[in-house]
Amino acid sequence: MVEQKILTGHVLRMTESLLKAGVEAAVISPGSRSTPLAYAFAASEGIQTYMQVDERSAAYFALGLAKASGKPVILLCTSGTAASNYHPAITEAFYARLPLIVMTADRPHELRGVGAPQAIDQLNMYGKHVKFSVDLPLAEDNRELDRYLERHIQRAVSVSLTQPMGPIHLNIPLREPLLIDFDQQTPASSFMETYSGQTQLTSEAEKRFSKILSVAENGLIIAGEMPVGFDKRTFWKFAKSLQWPVLVDPLSNLRSEVPEDCKELCIAHYDALLKSDAFKKQAVAHTVIRFGPQPVSKPLSLFLKNNPPTVYIAIDEAPEFRDSLGVVTHHLQVSPDSVLRIPIERLQTDHTRLWSRADRIAEVVTKEYTGMPGDEGIIVKTLLEYLPSGSDLVSGSSMPIRDLDTFFSQTDKELTLFSNRGANGIDGVVSTAFGIQTVRQRPTYLLIGDLSFLHDVNGLIVSRFHKTNLTIIILNNDGGGIFSYLPQSTVPNHFEELFGTPTGLTFEHIAAMYDAQYAAIHSVDEFEAEIRNEKTKNVRILEVFTNRPINVQSHRAYWAEVVERIEKND
Amino acid sequence: MVEQKILTGHVLRMTESLLKAGVEAAVISPGSRSTPLAYAFAASEGIQTYMQVDERSAAYFALGLAKASGKPVILLCTSGTAASNYHPAITEAFYARLPLIVMTADRPHELRGVGAPQAIDQLNMYGKHVKFSVDLPLAEDNRELDRYLERHIQRAVSVSLTQPMGPIHLNIPLREPLLIDFDQQTPASSFMETYSGQTQLTSEAEKRFSKILSVAENGLIIAGEMPVGFDKRTFWKFAKSLQWPVLVDPLSNLRSEVPEDCKELCIAHYDALLKSDAFKKQAVAHTVIRFGPQPVSKPLSLFLKNNPPTVYIAIDEAPEFRDSLGVVTHHLQVSPDSVLRIPIERLQTDHTRLWSRADRIAEVVTKEYTGMPGDEGIIVKTLLEYLPSGSDLVSGSSMPIRDLDTFFSQTDKELTLFSNRGANGIDGVVSTAFGIQTVRQRPTYLLIGDLSFLHDVNGLIVSRFHKTNLTIIILNNDGGGIFSYLPQSTVPNHFEELFGTPTGLTFEHIAAMYDAQYAAIHSVDEFEAEIRNEKTKNVRILEVFTNRPINVQSHRAYWAEVVERIEKND
Repeated sequence: MVEQKILTGHVLRMTESLLKAGVEAAVISPGSRSTPLAYAFAASEGIQTYMQVDERSAAYFALGLAKASGKPVILLCTSGTAASNYHPAITEAFYARLPLIVMTADRPHELRGVGAPQAIDQLNMYGKHVKFSVDLPLAEDNRELDRYLERHIQRAVSVSLTQPMGPIHLNIPLREPLLIDFDQQTPASSFMETYSGQTQLTSEAEKRFSKILSVAENGLIIAGEMPVGFDKRTFWKFAKSLQWPVLVDPLSNLRSEVPEDCKELCIAHYDALLKSDAFKKQAVAHTVIRFGPQPVSKPLSLFLKNNPPTVYIAIDEAPEFRDSLGVVTHHLQVSPDSVLRIPIERLQTDHTRLWSRADRIAEVVTKEYTGMPGDEGIIVKTLLEYLPSGSDLVSGSSMPIRDLDTFFSQTDKELTLFSNRGANGIDGVVSTAFGIQTVRQRPTYLLIGDLSFLHDVNGLIVSRFHKTNLTIIILNNDGGGIFSYLPQSTVPNHFEELFGTPTGLTFEHIAAMYDAQYAAIHSVDEFEAEIRNEKTKNVRILEVFTNRPINVQSHRAYWAEVVERIEKND
Repeated sequence: MVEQKILTGHVLRMTESLLKAGVEAAVISPGSRSTPLAYAFAASEGIQTYMQVDERSAAYFALGLAKASGKPVILLCTSGTAASNYHPAITEAFYARLPLIVMTADRPHELRGVGAPQAIDQLNMYGKHVKFSVDLPLAEDNRELDRYLERHIQRAVSVSLTQPMGPIHLNIPLREPLLIDFDQQTPASSFMETYSGQTQLTSEAEKRFSKILSVAENGLIIAGEMPVGFDKRTFWKFAKSLQWPVLVDPLSNLRSEVPEDCKELCIAHYDALLKSDAFKKQAVAHTVIRFGPQPVSKPLSLFLKNNPPTVYIAIDEAPEFRDSLGVVTHHLQVSPDSVLRIPIERLQTDHTRLWSRADRIAEVVTKEYTGMPGDEGIIVKTLLEYLPSGSDLVSGSSMPIRDLDTFFSQTDKELTLFSNRGANGIDGVVSTAFGIQTVRQRPTYLLIGDLSFLHDVNGLIVSRFHKTNLTIIILNNDGGGIFSYLPQSTVPNHFEELFGTPTGLTFEHIAAMYDAQYAAIHSVDEFEAEIRNEKTKNVRILEVFTNRPINVQSHRAYWAEVVERIEKND
């Protein structure tokens, strides 16, 4: 019983330290070695626990919780390959800069490296995909260790929350017996609190930045993905004072609720506009300020790469600023907020009017777009038109986010868009959407391709343990739609076998298995009717059957139309 | 076109080097960055390619191929989280000592660490779970690099195949454009061949080993999992010359086809026998020789731990010999084969007769066992009775392998049993079974729990791309059956929530989705009838509904019966 008392104190101390450090949720996968911590979390009032038996999906669910809440989220599993299953979501969290607190239970020293069951080398097992990794001590009756533990858990969570945020790894050896005493009191913690500061530009740097902006010609603001809680009003105030066109990635969430006096500045259709050679020639930017990561648009990337701006300022909290094009000339290593407060005043120029006029034309083409039967763009456009204000939209990271980029015009509706663009994987998207919905508790829609849905079909397991509320729109083109846009599609050899990879699978069976509402949809009219139908179950699946070659054709016709109209208007 | 010529030469050279090193199969997941290698493998006559869109399942499928063939198997994916999804199977392969050749396509240097899409830090990303990891050079017109590449690929595969075998990682940066010229000839390789040697005991070590065995009293041979191609005849010759009882783990595959004159020596029911205190007292071993890893049986582990043999010889190719009990006294760092050839001659003793008599009694109890309605043991026993000679049985690594251990008596049938016991994960089991069946092309049965099946339900995707042939027997006890045997089950707090984790899912929908034959089974009679029914489709799923508490009760009654009868007979 002395052993049990020490073990109980150990895990209660860890739990209390995690709570103090701001953790409010834990995603647990069943396992034996992690028992003491699972008990402590389940018994703690401050920690909301979630169960998911597939650790890969569990980790992406936790990632969704962290993405939507901005708060650190615990992942807890037993020892062995369970921990390896966390790796994909940890990788995404590292590049998407999300605070996951990964806790892997482990065997004690005498069972490591000796062929014991479910014992693998877990030390530093996520390599450079976590910001911090530590092998914690075993439970021990030792006041010095207790004090270390209380502080070290705070350190770990602080590392996770320090900009750029990211996942951290606590490896936790536990020795049998693994049962705890549920009546034992939580020990008093000897560490109180961390107050974290915010990085600000020095006044010297601020002066130099202001000066660059005040003399710049043909400026552009680019807004990539913005974190949850980003202050849109301050952003638009800044943009308005500069009077520069603002190219807004769909994940910036700056295409919705644009203030009236900034609508002209907000450019949503740059991806289409930059397919026009004539427009590109006129629209070259001299100075660019970019907030967040480089947007998803390939034409924009090529435009910037082929016409490198004289000044390209990246605002990025990380010392390793993102610049895959090799065009950044200045790096402001601070959060967007601190830059937006710097006062600047400029007048509108022809350059701004050029971008604005073209974007209005593209907006009209988009409004008129009807697509060809089998096209996915028209489904995306119809969905955007339908979505009620106050909804959330989670996007797959391959074709769906590109289609959203293309067809998402400015809107007065309050829509929030999410996607896993840290590493752009097609994996874990269903789980991420469930995590986001769980935090936000708003009507949530997931737009996803068939392969991506299939990859994380186990994301649905969470709906067996917790109340969920999600509409999943599957664009089923029977395979890898994105490859139809790539050069591989022009080579007949092995295309379907290696890239098309048609599985021939449809998902009404999955809907039945998980007791989800389901509709098979074969046209945009059917889609329009179905999306408006009442949602009667916790999960609704709308499977839209599309056609890969026609989809490409239809998109190309849209882009050609935009190019023709802006060049004619010119 | 010069670029394309260089790139084509580069990937053809790699492919040729892999072929020379003995690779015959590649499991590919669709992606863009890996295009040149995917093309080269698909175009190569010497490499059989397999597609699987879920990389986690792809890796376990490759593991199954490697497990059944004993040959190195390529895994190929694009850059990003695709590579992270390989981690679980790589971990299992490392501890199960299987030669996976993991090839991750990567971005070139200028796209690394700069925020480029689908670019993650892939260098050494599997840490200590691979034996070797290298970042290969980009394609270049450079004869020195070519010569390096030809040799370095051989080195990598040789590391993988050197005992103890294990996975290796080739990270392969590729620069756009990614298309190759299908008409280009494979360049001549400047490296010829590797002839690898075999580790043998020195004659001095052999003499000392012989001496220990020739004077030992109360000896035991323990046989853990044996690799594919292990020579059973030589093993039994050795056992016969020693006249010691042989405790055979089900994965040793030594319970089937036991030579007539060794049947007495073969002890299959030690797990049950060692529940008798009286038997344990009499059966204590003075000297033990163990081949392979420690068997799955917990009673055996406790028996050895509580009665440490004076001499415990582990035969294990690895310098890090497996000994989770801390009882090994001598380590022979060689393969079993070289030990089995050492001549020894002993006479049978009372010790051997004691074990043999008890095992015959347990065999009778097993034969008479009928289980209670809802029991899983009787299903396993019935399956073993049914299985035709010449079949393969793949077992889940949690309860199924324990039940096989309990109910698998000696048989004259030729059965081969497989399981993932490197790290004992419940993940990837469906894919592993498909991989094994693909290599062996025999009637293959998979015995698996509901959570394990659900975890790797995407393993079935491979059946959409390739001809498969598998009967899957799901023991559906609605959750984590193994926890009912652990101390956690005696604590009411949070048991079902954290450990039972009942999903309420059934799998007839999955069968429909994958066009598999399906039957729901509620009794042993139904099971007996269904298993004999004709298999009409490539995949057959027999879902047997069982009951967790009754299952435990029924097993305990079986063990009590064995104990009572051997103690009475005593």
